[in-house]
Amino acid sequence: MKKIEHIGIAVKNIDQATKTYEMLLNKKAYKEEEVESEGVKTVFFETGESKIELLGATTDNSPIAKYINKKGEGIHHIAFAVDNINNEIKRLKDIGFQLINNEAKTGADGKIIAFLHPKSNNGVLVELCQDAN
Amino acid sequence: MKKIEHIGIAVKNIDQATKTYEMLLNKKAYKEEEVESEGVKTVFFETGESKIELLGATTDNSPIAKYINKKGEGIHHIAFAVDNINNEIKRLKDIGFQLINNEAKTGADGKIIAFLHPKSNNGVLVELCQDAN
Repeated sequence: MKKIEHIGIAVKNIDQATKTYEMLLNKKAYKEEEVESEGVKTVFFETGESKIELLGATTDNSPIAKYINKKGEGIHHIAFAVDNINNEIKRLKDIGFQLINNEAKTGADGKIIAFLHPKSNNGVLVELCQDAN
Repeated sequence: MKKIEHIGIAVKNIDQATKTYEMLLNKKAYKEEEVESEGVKTVFFETGESKIELLGATTDNSPIAKYINKKGEGIHHIAFAVDNINNEIKRLKDIGFQLINNEAKTGADGKIIAFLHPKSNNGVLVELCQDAN
């Protein structure tokens, strides 16, 4: 794990939350991206070498809609940058970590990603994140 | 906000969690510190320019014990590094953010800190963090 790549925050109203985080972080978002397969709209802010990723549901079946219904708004996951996601998946599986994605898949922001199950990490949903190119 | 200073994670068993995060992050913790006034033991890991801070309760009245009873283990707060915490508190108050600490106070790891109320930030407990020296 090289660094915190981003922190994902689940929000009810992505436009309102974007304004809030523009005021909090005192800067504009640098990118919006919709991930149709996940039913989610994302808005990104830079902060140092990491990013804040706001996550808003675009459908009722979106994992983000379900998360907010169950737990409310708040920090949804922490993503770590890795050099080689397949090596890292293997390393973690071999020492007993439970993965949600046994194989890396395409995520937002030009990344290849995989999630670890929160059960393995004291309730924290952890994402592994490798640059796609 | 210059960067993510650290992510605070509330855990039930700090010794077990320390072992888990040593395996996850593939490195040793670099510091342990008990903050008696808060009823909390902290364990720190470096990751890039940021830190992961595990938080374990040392008393039943600890805010961390209460948090885990209510919400379970998981990400507790996100801390941003600031150059001048008093200026940042004033800036945020002036634009309507609600602070838990209206004045900066001493925190762990040689920092001066203040918390914003999660209500202001879509359910996210935000800490401002300035080096004490």
